[in-house]
Order: sequence, then structure tokens, then C-alpha cells
Amino acid sequence: MTETMKAVVYTGAALPEVQERPKPVIEAPGDALVQMLYSTICGTDLHILRGDVPTVDRGRVLGHEGVGRIVAVGSAVPPTLCPGDIVLLACITACRACAACHRGMCSHCTGGGWQLGNLIDGTQAEYVRVPHAAGSLYPLPESLDPQAAVALSDALPTGMECGTLNARIAPGCSVAIVGAGPVGLAALLTARLSTPARIVVFDLDEARLAHARRLGADETLSPLDAGAVDQLLDKMDVPGFDAVIEAVGIPQTFSLCQRLVGPGGVIANVGVHGQPVSLALDKLWDRNITITTRLVDAVTIPTLMRLWQSNRLDPGALITDNFPFSNVLDAYRRFQEAANTGTLKVGITF
Amino acid sequence: MTETMKAVVYTGAALPEVQERPKPVIEAPGDALVQMLYSTICGTDLHILRGDVPTVDRGRVLGHEGVGRIVAVGSAVPPTLCPGDIVLLACITACRACAACHRGMCSHCTGGGWQLGNLIDGTQAEYVRVPHAAGSLYPLPESLDPQAAVALSDALPTGMECGTLNARIAPGCSVAIVGAGPVGLAALLTARLSTPARIVVFDLDEARLAHARRLGADETLSPLDAGAVDQLLDKMDVPGFDAVIEAVGIPQTFSLCQRLVGPGGVIANVGVHGQPVSLALDKLWDRNITITTRLVDAVTIPTLMRLWQSNRLDPGALITDNFPFSNVLDAYRRFQEAANTGTLKVGITF
Amino acid sequence: MTETMKAVVYTGAALPEVQERPKPVIEAPGDALVQMLYSTICGTDLHILRGDVPTVDRGRVLGHEGVGRIVAVGSAVPPTLCPGDIVLLACITACRACAACHRGMCSHCTGGGWQLGNLIDGTQAEYVRVPHAAGSLYPLPESLDPQAAVALSDALPTGMECGTLNARIAPGCSVAIVGAGPVGLAALLTARLSTPARIVVFDLDEARLAHARRLGADETLSPLDAGAVDQLLDKMDVPGFDAVIEAVGIPQTFSLCQRLVGPGGVIANVGVHGQPVSLALDKLWDRNITITTRLVDAVTIPTLMRLWQSNRLDPGALITDNFPFSNVLDAYRRFQEAANTGTLKVGITF
Amino acid sequence: MTETMKAVVYTGAALPEVQERPKPVIEAPGDALVQMLYSTICGTDLHILRGDVPTVDRGRVLGHEGVGRIVAVGSAVPPTLCPGDIVLLACITACRACAACHRGMCSHCTGGGWQLGNLIDGTQAEYVRVPHAAGSLYPLPESLDPQAAVALSDALPTGMECGTLNARIAPGCSVAIVGAGPVGLAALLTARLSTPARIVVFDLDEARLAHARRLGADETLSPLDAGAVDQLLDKMDVPGFDAVIEAVGIPQTFSLCQRLVGPGGVIANVGVHGQPVSLALDKLWDRNITITTRLVDAVTIPTLMRLWQSNRLDPGALITDNFPFSNVLDAYRRFQEAANTGTLKVGITF
Repeated sequence: MTETMKAVVYTGAALPEVQERPKPVIEAPGDALVQMLYSTICGTDLHILRGDVPTVDRGRVLGHEGVGRIVAVGSAVPPTLCPGDIVLLACITACRACAACHRGMCSHCTGGGWQLGNLIDGTQAEYVRVPHAAGSLYPLPESLDPQAAVALSDALPTGMECGTLNARIAPGCSVAIVGAGPVGLAALLTARLSTPARIVVFDLDEARLAHARRLGADETLSPLDAGAVDQLLDKMDVPGFDAVIEAVGIPQTFSLCQRLVGPGGVIANVGVHGQPVSLALDKLWDRNITITTRLVDAVTIPTLMRLWQSNRLDPGALITDNFPFSNVLDAYRRFQEAANTGTLKVGITF
Repeated sequence: MTETMKAVVYTGAALPEVQERPKPVIEAPGDALVQMLYSTICGTDLHILRGDVPTVDRGRVLGHEGVGRIVAVGSAVPPTLCPGDIVLLACITACRACAACHRGMCSHCTGGGWQLGNLIDGTQAEYVRVPHAAGSLYPLPESLDPQAAVALSDALPTGMECGTLNARIAPGCSVAIVGAGPVGLAALLTARLSTPARIVVFDLDEARLAHARRLGADETLSPLDAGAVDQLLDKMDVPGFDAVIEAVGIPQTFSLCQRLVGPGGVIANVGVHGQPVSLALDKLWDRNITITTRLVDAVTIPTLMRLWQSNRLDPGALITDNFPFSNVLDAYRRFQEAANTGTLKVGITF
Repeated sequence: MTETMKAVVYTGAALPEVQERPKPVIEAPGDALVQMLYSTICGTDLHILRGDVPTVDRGRVLGHEGVGRIVAVGSAVPPTLCPGDIVLLACITACRACAACHRGMCSHCTGGGWQLGNLIDGTQAEYVRVPHAAGSLYPLPESLDPQAAVALSDALPTGMECGTLNARIAPGCSVAIVGAGPVGLAALLTARLSTPARIVVFDLDEARLAHARRLGADETLSPLDAGAVDQLLDKMDVPGFDAVIEAVGIPQTFSLCQRLVGPGGVIANVGVHGQPVSLALDKLWDRNITITTRLVDAVTIPTLMRLWQSNRLDPGALITDNFPFSNVLDAYRRFQEAANTGTLKVGITF
Repeated sequence: MTETMKAVVYTGAALPEVQERPKPVIEAPGDALVQMLYSTICGTDLHILRGDVPTVDRGRVLGHEGVGRIVAVGSAVPPTLCPGDIVLLACITACRACAACHRGMCSHCTGGGWQLGNLIDGTQAEYVRVPHAAGSLYPLPESLDPQAAVALSDALPTGMECGTLNARIAPGCSVAIVGAGPVGLAALLTARLSTPARIVVFDLDEARLAHARRLGADETLSPLDAGAVDQLLDKMDVPGFDAVIEAVGIPQTFSLCQRLVGPGGVIANVGVHGQPVSLALDKLWDRNITITTRLVDAVTIPTLMRLWQSNRLDPGALITDNFPFSNVLDAYRRFQEAANTGTLKVGITF
């Protein structure tokens, strides 16, 4: 008789359903079976619910973030991962053996990548099967709060890799972050690790801007206040920012980024875009700028964990709400209102 | 009584005029006065004639490339530059003292940049005043042909800096070059210095593609042959090129570049664009790509000269035609037909 | 009944012995069993025979290079590696899952590294068990000569990684290579991929210097000719080389490298040293130099293979002699005389 | 009639002499004449007094650090530097036009470099002539304390460039700093800008270690406590530090650095060495380490100034004592005792 479990399932509707599903089992020698302890909801989960992510079939268990306890491992899982271990799940499962993984570009792993809650069942369930466990699970030191750790599955590595590292943030540079949602603020937290001289954060929502100031933004601004943006740029002694991080994903914010970037600067795109944007190459062809895109590779998780252990980083700052798994649909409802309510990451406890 | 000289002057018409103009004089301690020996015409000069470059006033002497003999220097020019020296003129005059110059971004020099034939009178004249001589003139070794050296003022540094270096070309990578005009072929010549495993060049003109093959392209293709482009991509074992160089400057070619770039790859824009382009961030946001723009900084001239001296590079390969300065308007007419006639750089001898 | 095979075994004597040994079997899910087709002898094998490598026990089957046919795989080996496939063996076996592997530093893999012919039985045998097969075996395209491919197991990646890449060789730079044995010449072949303006090779043996010239050295010199070294340096327009590659491993050659390196230059150590050296920090503290060491990580094998496939690299140029496995001790005798006989890599055919 | 001024002069004795000297004048178009307001003493000045710096002749006015007011400029000094301006003097005077300057290696400027207080008269005098003023003077914003700014002439750029940048310090890495004098602590202050996970500082003097803890060291240790060093290394989960900064300059401390560096790590040498050291290549040849040396290029001064202006850096923390210029010999006496008294930089006010 197959054991069952509760799982959050995408049905095509605007809210997922909690369903009874067969408990997963080890399928390949590199798999681990993990009992979830904590999870969270990503902006991408909302994209799925809106039907924006064609790779996600109806019936898929959602979720690609979380912390759990290993309950079984395949024969090829190394002894550093054992049943009983509390582990952080990376949002990217990585074989570590393909050419993409060798380049540190695990998001394009030929046998892995963004699988959980996308191509295979995910982490918003009592149990999850994790392929390529050796490349995708990280034992969580006891000193770290497992509830806060869910911000290390995706949000903080995304802010670090797609934002801070791609934008080449270095001591003394100037940084503009467009978008103060969880990922924009993750970019803020990780940008600060490299001590820019100035960080300005843009968002429409004053509650989010207040978060940004609490987390270390030097200045905050509404992009709707066009006069303020002009004034900001006019007052700079060089014409624009060294590093601009796009953390929204719509044409208007990408346009703003093009106004903000200075000669020799970088626009690091983090936002998930649903349509093409206009790129003003007529104005930018001679500006010596760089534009980057990246799906998080989750390769900075060990570094972020080390920084947290030494009290240089506080992932808990990104988590504003907590719900028991029994109320997971309330968590979804709360998160769907996030842009106007000051909500950042919503924790889910099993 | 002021001495005069002959000069090629922009009048607003489709062809410049040869006029009698006052011979320039030293104006600042850092200036040098150079008697031109060889010059050439740049694609940008044609943009000026079409009225596309708003910084160029009518009455401006054109030209930002060439080789000449120093005839006078200001009091602050270092003793490495003396009257009588044969020198290469960089297309970018660089103070070397501002923050942009310190970053190697001399194109954005606050007191220099692209001045010659743009903001001040240029090199298509018997004499030219060169500001910031110490940062803008390079003594030409006797072993190097001064007629061929004109390709080192702009075309080859542009290919190297905006193309090869920005595209991070490294041994074993795959390279696509879109556009086989002088700058696209300069990108080809300099790309080969880093030994890619494969270089494919795209252009509409078969004569230019034949040039590309002679200069080392492994394959050439017309972008109009859509089936061939599909087939090319289908046959690759990774989905796209590591390095894509845009050397045309229109929306269609920039679109082609977006099709050609593989995950983790770079699109290095070299082309001068007159309008915005569409950037398919909906398809590229998760492809881990980089897009770069750059106005040539001319900082690789010493390296290119060293490579030429050791027979690793042949700038003469880019020069297909030569005219005496007395026939400079014929040179313009020839160059205006270049895209259909196999003409690359047109040399001008004084 | 255990099957047996012939294998070259280290016994503590100056020459190894060919012994009958049990044929290895799959021991772990990530293992592959490979029937050897071609192997070769490394300078490190000679170090082992001289007793210089304390990690090698008596009774060890030697060899960490070669090409073979997969005959069996463990349950966790991915389907890209199948019985029947002809594969190149990397000298470094890499788990790809540890922190060192994630940094591309597979030589320090916590469960792998230099195992073959060192910590476990190696490739100078009819069969070899290869741990971490997914990270250590490379299918060899049919177009590539498997006999020449043995130079890709160790010699060429060593030249590329420890020499060319560590020395940051770039177009137009000046390069000195001290030592023209197989690894020094592998550094020469790979250095040329980045088109230095000048490559000078130093060795005591004129036959090796003749090899160097054939493989593209611009100049060659005996380090014993002190006057010539002085003269070489005196004639340079900058005081020393940008890139110096140490490919011998004795104090005298490391001293020579310190004389040769220019301000801002790199000494990339490739040689295996048996004793400390003197570092003239009193002269070098203010010279802005870099010194690097590296055990080959074998991470450039795919790149080198691609370059070979596109005819940009000829590994066969490093192989001067070939012996059948039945005469493997003659191969050892020949290789022990290599420094004076012009012998480079000695091929072994099974 | 020549005007005179008071100046600190090296006479060959263990203490300099205050002498009456002719006031300097503008000699070249790029010169500025600066009236000193604040200066300080460098460890290198003590080396000079001990006769260790052969380039310094008797009769030389000492000093290469300080802040002053421009009183005259040559004809080629740009209008960004005017009489009356308060400026920081870089310890390195840089022409910005030579190949070394173009590489950002101004310490090896062919017409500049470390000139002040070495090859020409320096800053421990009422007036100083500064060659290459455009590349060597930085207008000091009014908001910055000019007395504290003297730490930006040499100490902080040295810590940043020779220490932090060369050691490639990045978020989450582990750092060991050997030597807690002014330059070691400048390395500590600048290392913290990149948020290592752990910084351990070594020194013999407990007062200096206490400074280090106040400035952000996580742990401090005496290198004489061999057991503690062993224990420290034993407890690390990787065998050694990512970044080791040598800030003393003797063979014993360089040996300690070799013990501390982990695989893939960097030893960034900052110390001024008077003799060769032993480099254990027999142990390090396969450790994938990097060793760097550098004479400060002073190119990070604008970045450090920006960080200070935004309250990310406190140069004043390095200055423990202040003397009027009239008591400058007392300042020397105090600084000669610094290693045992907790004294760091000694300020001098004119």
C-alpha cells in the first residue's frame, strides 16, 4: 500500500489546492528523500499560478525552497549526506558533472537545473524527492535557525548571483536597486557585503522602501516621482550609477535602469520578464555598459551560509510572516498581497 | 599672415568639400601639431555626412585616423614625442588624468574622448592639432608600414576592444561575427589572436564574406538564408555561440545576435545604432548572458603594434584601396559603395 | 576464479616490474572499469621510482594517463558513459561535488584528486578502475587519434593550467619558458593559443631547444650562457618578461625565473620541486609580481579537445616514441634518458 | 633672494635633522608647489634612517605623505587643481602617460613612482614641489578631516592594494593578517570592506592586537604561541586561510604565512623585505597558491576617499599621536618605539 502525504498542487486555478498525494520514493542512485520542516513561497510560484510558466504542468506539486530532514538516500549519495541530517534544499538541483555545472552555471545543468516545483514535484509537500542530492543539499549547521534558512534556497543566492556578483559591486561604487521585494532586498543585503559608497532603492510601495531603509539603503525613491529621479541624477558627480539591479521584470523598470546606469556601469537583470523590452542602443552603444541576465545557479549557498554563521548576514530579515502548513493557502493569499502590505518572504512550517 | 592648408570639411551635404583652411597652431601646453602623411575614412564619417551625428557642426574638418609627422609640441609634451617623429594618431584623445582615463575608459575622458573630426578639426587635412598628445600619439617604429598603420587608429582597436575583449574570446570558444565590414573583419583578425575553435561570419555581401574567409573565418553565411541559420544552430552541440559580435548597428542584426547567443554567452555590440532595438528579455532573462556596448578607448594600440611588429597581425589586410589626398572625394565615393564592392578601408596619402 | 592482467608495478627499485595482477572490478556506484588501449609515462612516474613521492606505496600499479575502452560502469555513472565507449582518462579523478571541485580545483578534491598510480592502481595495466567516472572520463571523438590523445591526460592540461592560464598569457605579451621537456613544450603549445608577441625558451639540451623552435618558440637559449641571458634582458624595452613559466623544478631554474620576470609579471611554477628555494623578496617586494603554483586540475581537457578537433592544436607533436606494452620497460629506459636524447612523451600501445 | 623653509633632512644619522632649506619652486609645466598643512611618518622613513634604502641620498628631505594647500602650479596643470585648493598628496607621483601608468601600476611610472622623500625632496617640510601634479594630487572635500587624511597618502592605499586587493578578499572568505602595525591594520580596515567571514590577526605586541580587535579582527594571536597556531589550523574545516597578508617583512613572518595559506589561497606580501626568504616549493608546488608583491600604486585613493565620505571607513582610527612640526623629532622618537607602545601613525601639524 502506497503511503500518502499532503502537497500543494498547481491545478490551473489562481490558488493551488492541498491534495493527498503518494509519498515519493528514491528513484535513482543520486536521489535523497527529504521530509520537509520549513518551506516558503517564491514570486515564481505566483507566476506559475498566473499561467506564465509553460514548463509547469497541472498537477505539479509546487515549491523549490525549504529545509528538511533526510529520510532516505540512494546508493550513490556520498556519506556527507545521511538519513537524519537537517539540510537546506537549493532551488537548483545540479548534477555537477555536465559542462554547464563545470562552469558554475548549474541553472543550465543538462540533467538538473530548476526541476523542483517545475519539472518534478517540489517542496511544498510533506516529502520531496531531490535528484542529484550531492550537488543540491547542504547540511545545515545547528547554530543556524532552520526557519530563517529558507531564504537561502533561492532569494539570497538570487540577490547575490544575479544581482550583486553580476553587477560587479565593489567597495566604493554606487548602486541603484529597482524593486524592493524579497529579491530586491536580498540584492541589497548581499550588495552591502561589498560596501558600496551609496545604495539607492526604488519601489512604488512605501512599506517596502521602509524595509529597504531598515536593511541599509542610504536613500529610497518612488520611480513615479520623475522630478526626484532627475534631481538624483543631476546631483551625481558622475552621470549615473556604477551598478544597477533590476528586480521587478517589466519594461518600465528596465527603462528606468537604462536611465540610471552610468558610463562603464552594469545593469544586472534579476527580474522575470514576460515580454520583450526596448533597449536604447542609440543612446547606449557608446556608453561602455554591460547588461547581464542570470537564472540563479545557487552556487553561493555555502558562502552565504558561512557569512550567516559569522553574523555577517541575517536571512531572517527577509521573512515577515509565518504560517503552519495546515494554513498554506492563507500563506499564498498573504503573499499575493505582498507588494502592497510590506510582506516579504512568507514562512511555512510543517 | 596665417598659413593655410587643404582640408576635408563637412558642409551638411552628402559629400564633404575640400577647402582652404588656416593651418592649426599649438593652443595648449599638451598639444602637438602633426603634418598628416596618411589618413583613411571611417564608417562614422559617413554617419556624419548623413547628419546622424549631432555633435558635429557644419564647417568641421573630418577624420579621426591617420599617421603623420610631429612639427611642433607644447611645453608639457614629454620628450618621448619630438618634432620630426612619425606618429600614429589614436582616434581618441586622452588626458590620462581623469577618472574615466584611470579606468582605461578614455572614450569618456572628461577633457578628451572622440574629439578629432567631431568636436574639433580632424585628420583629413594637411595639418592637425592633437590635444593631450602624450595620451594620444604613438611613435611608429620604422619597421611598420605607415600606410597600413592607419588601420590602428580606430578599426583594429575597435575590433579588439568593443569586439574581442568585451566578448571575452578565449581559446576553444565559438564565435559568431555579424557584419563583415572593416570593423567586423577587424574583430575577426583580433578574435583569432585568442584561437577560438570556430568562427562563423555573417554578412549580406558575398564579396565581404570572401574577405572573411581569406582572413580566417571557418564558415560564412548570409543572414537572409534563414534555413541555414536554423541548421547551423541545430547542429551545435550546445545551443548557441559563446561570443557574438554585432558589427552592423541595426535592429535586424541585433535580433540575429540574440538568436545566436548561447547560455552563458556574450553579445558584444560594436555597431553604431541609430534607433532603439527590441531585447527579448522574456527569452533571455534566464539564459545567463551578457550584453556589452563600448565606444573604442584606443587603449590596445600599443599591444596591437607589438603584435604587428612580431608578425602576429597584418593591418594591411584591411586596406583595399588607396587614393592621393588630391582625389580624396573619389575615396569618399568609393567608400560609400563599400558594402557592395568588397571595399574595406580606403587609404589616403598626402 | 579471479581474472588477472599484466601491470607495471612500483617495487622500490629504479625500474618498475611487470607483474600479473588481479583484474580490477567495480567497487562503488560511480566507478568505471576501463580496458587500456594507450598509455604513456610521466616525469612524475620517474619521481616515484626515485622514491620522491611518499604517498606511493610499493606494490602500486603506476600510470595516470591514457585512453581506453569502458568495459563496465557502476549504477550511478550517467548514460553519457557506456560500455564500449572509447574514453580519455584525466590524470585527476574528480567527484565534482566537494568545495574544491566547485572551485574548479579538482586536484584538491576531497574524495579524488591525483589517485591513479598514486593512491590507487593506475593506467599502466591492461585494466584500470576509475573512481568518479563522470568527472574523470571524456568520450573521445572518432576524429581524434587515440594514440596522440594520451598527451591530453596530463601534459597538455598541465601546460595550459599551471603554465599558460596561471601566467595570464594574453595577446601581445612576452613569455619566457624555463625547461623544454614535455610539460615545458606543452606550455609552449598552449601559450601560443593566446598569441604572445614573443616566446623565449630556455633549456640545457640543444635537442629540446630544437623541438621548441619547431613548435613555435621565437628564440631559444641555454641558461648556462649567462652572457646571453644578460644581453637578452638588456635589449628588452621593458625590464623583464610579462610571463615566466618554470617547468623544471630545481632551485637554479626558479632563480633564473626571478631574474627574467618584469614588473607586473607572473612566475607560473609548473615544476615539481623536491626542496625549498630562495625567494629574493628583498628585490621583488616592490616589483608587483605574482608567483603561482598549481597541481593540474585537468579541467581544461574539454577545451583542449575542442581545439584539437578544429585543428588548432596538435597533441601528437609531443609524442616522439612508441612502444608496445610488452616492451614497457624499454619505454621506461628511453624516458629516463629523455633529457639528453630529444625524447619527449613515450607512447605505450596495448 | 631665495626664500627658505624648515625641512626634515636625512643626514645618515639615526635621527633626521631639521634644517633651513631653500623653498622649492615650479620646475616643470606639470608641477605644483604645495604648502604643507599635515604630514606623518612612514615605516619606510625609519628604513631610510637605518640606511636600508640605497636610493635615498644624504641631504634628502624626507616624507611622502600629507595634506597641503596649493600655492602655485605649472602651465600644464589642469584647472581642477588651483592655488588655494587643499589637496591630499599621493605617496606615488604618476605621469599617467607611460605604459606602467596605463596598467594602473603607477609605482613603476617611468618618470614618476616613489619620488617624494626618496629621489626628490619630500613632504616633511613647509613646502614641497610635486611633479606630475595632475596624477598625484587629490582635492580634499571639506567634509573630510585633513589631519586624518594623511593616512590616505600611503597607509590605506597600501593596505588596500598590496593587501586586500592582491589577496582577492571576497565576501565569506577567511583572512589572516600577519603584523598589526599601521599597514597591517590598514589592511584590516580595507579587508573588512569586502566582509570576510573571519579575520585573524597575528602580532607579538598585545597593544597592537588590542588595536586590531577594536578595528574588527575576530581573533588575535601571538605567532610565538606555536601551540595556538597549530590549534587554530587544526580546528579549521579547510586546511588554511583563503587570504594571508604579510605586513612585517622578515623571513619568520613570511614562513608563518606559508603555514597559514590554504590550497587555492593567496599570500599577499606587503612588508618591505631586507633579505631573501625561503619558499617551501617542495610543499607548495601542488597547493595551487598565489604569492603577490606590490609597491603601492596609490590608485585607490579616490575610492578610499569616497568610502570615507560615506562613513564606510575611518582613516582617523590609524592615527594615535599628534605633534606640531616644531617637535617633529619627538614624533620620530615616538614612532621608532611604535612596535612596543601601541603607537600607530604619528600625525604632524604645520
